[in-house]
Amino acid sequence: MRIAVQAETDPHESRVAATPETVKTFIGLGAEVAVETGAGRKSAIADDAYAAAGATIAPTAAAAAAGADVVLRVRRPAAAELAGVKPGAVVLAILDPYENLAALQSLAGAGVSAFAMELIPRITRAQSMDVLSSQANLAGYRAVIDAAASYDRAIPMMTTAAGSIQPARIFIMGVGVAGLQAIATARRIGGLVTATDVRPATKEQVLSLGAKFIAVEDEEFAAAETAAGYAKPMSPEYQAKQAELTASHIAKQDIVITTALIPGRKAPVLITAEMVASMQRGSIIIDLAVERGGNCELSRPGETVISDNGVKITGNLNVPGRVPASASALYARNLVNFLKPLIDKETHELAIDWDDEIIKATALTRDGALPHPNFQAPAPEP
Amino acid sequence: MRIAVQAETDPHESRVAATPETVKTFIGLGAEVAVETGAGRKSAIADDAYAAAGATIAPTAAAAAAGADVVLRVRRPAAAELAGVKPGAVVLAILDPYENLAALQSLAGAGVSAFAMELIPRITRAQSMDVLSSQANLAGYRAVIDAAASYDRAIPMMTTAAGSIQPARIFIMGVGVAGLQAIATARRIGGLVTATDVRPATKEQVLSLGAKFIAVEDEEFAAAETAAGYAKPMSPEYQAKQAELTASHIAKQDIVITTALIPGRKAPVLITAEMVASMQRGSIIIDLAVERGGNCELSRPGETVISDNGVKITGNLNVPGRVPASASALYARNLVNFLKPLIDKETHELAIDWDDEIIKATALTRDGALPHPNFQAPAPEP
Repeated sequence: MRIAVQAETDPHESRVAATPETVKTFIGLGAEVAVETGAGRKSAIADDAYAAAGATIAPTAAAAAAGADVVLRVRRPAAAELAGVKPGAVVLAILDPYENLAALQSLAGAGVSAFAMELIPRITRAQSMDVLSSQANLAGYRAVIDAAASYDRAIPMMTTAAGSIQPARIFIMGVGVAGLQAIATARRIGGLVTATDVRPATKEQVLSLGAKFIAVEDEEFAAAETAAGYAKPMSPEYQAKQAELTASHIAKQDIVITTALIPGRKAPVLITAEMVASMQRGSIIIDLAVERGGNCELSRPGETVISDNGVKITGNLNVPGRVPASASALYARNLVNFLKPLIDKETHELAIDWDDEIIKATALTRDGALPHPNFQAPAPEP
Repeated sequence: MRIAVQAETDPHESRVAATPETVKTFIGLGAEVAVETGAGRKSAIADDAYAAAGATIAPTAAAAAAGADVVLRVRRPAAAELAGVKPGAVVLAILDPYENLAALQSLAGAGVSAFAMELIPRITRAQSMDVLSSQANLAGYRAVIDAAASYDRAIPMMTTAAGSIQPARIFIMGVGVAGLQAIATARRIGGLVTATDVRPATKEQVLSLGAKFIAVEDEEFAAAETAAGYAKPMSPEYQAKQAELTASHIAKQDIVITTALIPGRKAPVLITAEMVASMQRGSIIIDLAVERGGNCELSRPGETVISDNGVKITGNLNVPGRVPASASALYARNLVNFLKPLIDKETHELAIDWDDEIIKATALTRDGALPHPNFQAPAPEP
């Protein structure tokens, strides 16, 4: 079995889909691994390190792909980049399928079986494959580091001979994996941390990390979590009450980090232009939802906007890619954990159980077709 | 008594010498305060905030200076910027006197009494005026934030469903005020922290912050601290032994922060090009001594150099100015604490005791002359 690791073609993508550690694992499973030259450069992994782990270094993406049974990528490759792979080759990547049906059809036309790593179901057996969690965890960490680097004050309380500096008030909106890590990191650095979420189960998590929970806790709130553990859209009435509470709270914050996402939908607007106008000069908003439209009305993808009253609103793209070596290390392990059960221990060849829950949830192309019920036609509202 | 707060003219200076808090204090002491418009802009302080504290906003530096008894600055002003002040007016600033005798003579010629805030003696009574300490504290904090922002991995150990990420190994060289805060901050964020210094008394401080102490602990080391608490130059033999220990330690570090300064001298080179070459790709060096020549052979003032083996060496200038609002807040309080004892409680006018230890240590110009023994002629080697 031959595994290809190609360099990412998106210039903004700093991650890579395999590390020397995972190359070694694949070779231990009986595979050959070809890594495109320079694939690890932005994650501080030299070609030599892959070679030392047993990979061959391919001079081009095409050379890496030639004869491959499996292609590992971070982002969805173009069909043309997969020319030369074996018929039915497996492609593992973050496929970003919503509203990208044409790209999926093109992958199907290339004859590959493409699996969307971000659709790994949230079941115990699949936790170690969950790229959304591994990457969101790092995004939450990095959001706080970015806030600290952008903030014109020190975050912790400092007691000096010239008197004290007050700690920064840091508000985390949305307490998923990213939000929890943001809370933990902000607390570590010494911030005064509060957090909010529409899912009642998050309250205890927030308290257990030593932060304060801020939410309108009515009946709708008590019933607000979906079975999959995601937030569901709230009623306009609840949103109004929550927005009022949030508005008065935000006016007193130095740093706000927003992480609220609803899968397959535009991110909810949690911070209006009016709320930004109520904040102190020099305050910081880090919008982790900017790739999905943003949680702040003023955020712009890939930009730092400064409001009229001097609030900095940062909308970095690909925040996990801002700690690329760690993000690649965890993503690459997620791929190992996904791929390992698909390899027959005797023959060392792929043996995919197409009825497996994880396979059904992630397989978006197979035998020239689109087997997944959610990605048959232009992406439906879930 | 009239106090002028001018905007800094150095475009790289983000701090300001007064805040609304200190303006209020001066007014409470019976002074009038004129603040040049825009003086606080880079420290997130609007003119309105100064006005609300009771200051008048002056349209130009000259208008602020007109008739002033006291001029507050962060950096040494040019004599021309002080035109219009009262004869014998007091100027408080970081005067940077070493090798800048001509500038001091020019200030003396302007008829002002200029006090060098960085020469505040290290005595108990003067601690609250000590700008070196207040600013170094923030530099130590910011160095770690800059390292975290520049590092392509997460700093803390992270235990995830896809396995663990190891914590960053962080080495602090030089355990003065900046080094101690760097240790504390690096520990907070979750790094595995070691530190070194040639002064034996620092060992306990390092241990008390939960970090490990790394040094050749011989007889010379045991006798190495000066009365003023600064490091003194070590013998070539000691330096060689320490360099050997340091070299083997640095090769294993992910982040190195250097803070070693000797007052009035070039900073010692602690990290040679060979040591940099021994480090892992993606490692970080933050050189806080770069304005004094640098502790790392490869660092360049104001630049981030990337070595052939992929080590990033950052030599930011004015690191306290990278957290300008906090740095200004503490610096401004230092000035209040210095100036307050010089104001007669009855008359609300300046009444300087020229025999006071703090005054003698800091007064560099008076009545057209240079009274300080160390700054009489081209700066001598101390």
